[in-house]
Amino acid sequence: MGTIRVLTEGELRGVVGLGEAELAAVEEVYPLISAGVGSMPPIMRVEVPESNGEIDVKSAYLPGHSGIAVKVSTGFFDNPAKGLPSLGGLMMVFDSGSGVPQSALFDNGYLTDLRTALAGAVAARHLSNAAASKAAVLGAGVQARLQIEALTLVRPIERVTVWARRADRAEALASELSPRLGFRVETADTPQMAAAGADILVTTTPSTEPLVDETMLHPGLHVTAVGSDAEGKQEIAVGAVAVADGFFCDSIAQSARLGELRAAVTAGFDRRAVIELGSVIAGAAPGRLRETAITICDLTGTGAQDTAIASLAVDRSRRARAGIEIET
Amino acid sequence: MGTIRVLTEGELRGVVGLGEAELAAVEEVYPLISAGVGSMPPIMRVEVPESNGEIDVKSAYLPGHSGIAVKVSTGFFDNPAKGLPSLGGLMMVFDSGSGVPQSALFDNGYLTDLRTALAGAVAARHLSNAAASKAAVLGAGVQARLQIEALTLVRPIERVTVWARRADRAEALASELSPRLGFRVETADTPQMAAAGADILVTTTPSTEPLVDETMLHPGLHVTAVGSDAEGKQEIAVGAVAVADGFFCDSIAQSARLGELRAAVTAGFDRRAVIELGSVIAGAAPGRLRETAITICDLTGTGAQDTAIASLAVDRSRRARAGIEIET
Repeated sequence: MGTIRVLTEGELRGVVGLGEAELAAVEEVYPLISAGVGSMPPIMRVEVPESNGEIDVKSAYLPGHSGIAVKVSTGFFDNPAKGLPSLGGLMMVFDSGSGVPQSALFDNGYLTDLRTALAGAVAARHLSNAAASKAAVLGAGVQARLQIEALTLVRPIERVTVWARRADRAEALASELSPRLGFRVETADTPQMAAAGADILVTTTPSTEPLVDETMLHPGLHVTAVGSDAEGKQEIAVGAVAVADGFFCDSIAQSARLGELRAAVTAGFDRRAVIELGSVIAGAAPGRLRETAITICDLTGTGAQDTAIASLAVDRSRRARAGIEIET
Repeated sequence: MGTIRVLTEGELRGVVGLGEAELAAVEEVYPLISAGVGSMPPIMRVEVPESNGEIDVKSAYLPGHSGIAVKVSTGFFDNPAKGLPSLGGLMMVFDSGSGVPQSALFDNGYLTDLRTALAGAVAARHLSNAAASKAAVLGAGVQARLQIEALTLVRPIERVTVWARRADRAEALASELSPRLGFRVETADTPQMAAAGADILVTTTPSTEPLVDETMLHPGLHVTAVGSDAEGKQEIAVGAVAVADGFFCDSIAQSARLGELRAAVTAGFDRRAVIELGSVIAGAAPGRLRETAITICDLTGTGAQDTAIASLAVDRSRRARAGIEIET
C-alpha cells in the first residue's frame, strides 16, 4: 500500500539532536497548545500491576505539521533486576493529511529525552533572566545532562552545580559535563547548596517527596521542574509554589492531574493564577515581571512536543535517506 | 537494546486467519473484560478536522498474554478522492512483563478486520440458536465477507443473503462468496427482505440512520451489529433494542458512548438491562433464554481483542521466523 521508513535510535541520533532547529520546532508548539489549536487528547495509560509497569500513549495533531506522532512510553520498574532499563518506548508517525503511516521510530525514548530537554531550554528562554549564567540541576540521569546542555543554547551558562541523591552519580555527571561545557562542573552535598546562588534550577528526579521548598527560593531564581509526570510524584513543595511570583506550566490540565500543580491545587492554590508557557511565548500573558522575580515552570511533557520532534526527525530522515523502507 | 520483529500485511495474512485457534484467542478475552481483569483504558482519539480524519488508539493489558498491543486505527474520509483507502492502521506489541517492544505489525487494519469478524462468530456461538443455518448481512465490504465466513466456523450456515446500499457491490460480494461457501449466495433489494427468514442478521455498515427496526425482528432471530464505532453512527433503531428479549454487547461503557446503546440510553432504555458478552461466556449471566427469543449484540471492538490477536500473531511469527528483525 505504501512504504514505512523504520529508524533505530542510532539513526535518529544522527539526524536530530540539541540544535537550534530542534529548539525552534519544540518552541513553536506551545502557543498552539495554549490557544487550543489542533487536537491533543488526554494521555492514555495502561496499567500492568503484575509487572510493576505502565504504558503511556501521547499524541497530538498540530496544523502545519506533516506528521502526527503516536508516542508509546513504557515504564517497568522491576526491569533493572532483569538487566533491562526501566524506561523505553517508540513513536509511530502518520501523515497528517491522509493518516497513512510514514515512519516507525524505534528510539528507546531518545526523542522524548531530547524534546524534554529542549522544553527546559524554551522555559528558560522565556522565564529566566537573560544574563542567567549559573545553573544547578537536581538529579544525575540522562535528563540532568541534557537539560544543562540545552540551557547553553539559550543562556550564557558558565557555572553548573549538580546534586543527586547518590553522590557518586553526581560526581560522574560532573566529570562527564566539564569537558563538554569547557568549565568546571561542581557537585553539591544538598539540594539547598545546589540552589544557593543559582540563576536557573532544573529538577529532573522521579521524587515523590518535594526537594525544593520556599527557603531555597531567592530573588531572580527561575526553577524548571521536569521530573513529575505521574500521580504521586512531586519535586516542588506547595509552599514554594505559593510564594513564587509566577507559576507556569506546559499544560494546566496535565500539570493539575500529574504534575506539580496537583498537590498545590489540593492545598488550595488557585489554578487560575497559573499561566501556560504558550501564552507567554505568544505574548498573550506576562512572563517574568522583573529581574528579582521568582518563577517556577512545571513541564509534564505533551503529545504536541512529540509530534513536533517526530515530524522533524521524519523529514530529515527522508532527506538523508536514513533507516530502511518497508513495503507494506 | 534488543530486536523488534517487523511484519507486513502479507506476512501477517500468512500466519493468522479465520481459524479455530484465532477464534478461541478472541473468545477468551471477553470474560476478562467483563470481570474487570487487566487494564483497558478508554479509546484515545485525535481529531484531524482539516483532513476530515481521525486517529483512534486502543490498548489493553490482559494477564496471561505475552504481549500488550497498542493499536492505531486511521480514518481519513477524503482519501478515496486521492486514490487512497479511507481506513488504515497498524499495531505495536510490547512484552507484557518488561514493556520491551516486541513487534511492529504493519497490517493496514487486517488484524482489526480479522478480530472483528471473529467477535461476530463468538457472539453467534453464544447467542444464536445452535441450528441457525440462514444468515443475512447488511453491507458488502470487507467486514461483510469476513463476518459470513467467520459464522461458518460456529454455525451450520447453508443460506446467505446480502443487502447493500449499492446493489452492484452486493452482487459482487454474492458472486465472490458463492464459490467459497459452496452454495448460492443471494442478494436482497431491501434490508427487510434480507432479514426475512434469517436466523442470524449481521450489520456491517457505517450508517448514521438505523437500518434495522422492530418490524424486521422475528422470533428466533439473532442480530449482531458491528458497524457503529463512533458517535453519530447507528444501525439498530431504538425501537428494536426496546422490543428484543435480550440486548448484549462487548463493553457497556463503549457501547453507551459510541455504539448502539448510545441512542437507546438517550431515549430512556435502561442500561442495567444490558448484558456483556463476557458475562454470558463465563456463565455469570443468561444468554438466549429460548429458541424463539430475539437477541441483539452490539460489538464496538475492544483493545482486549487487539491484544489477543496481536499476541497470537507475534507468537506465530516468531516460530515461523516471518518478517524481519531490526536491531534497536
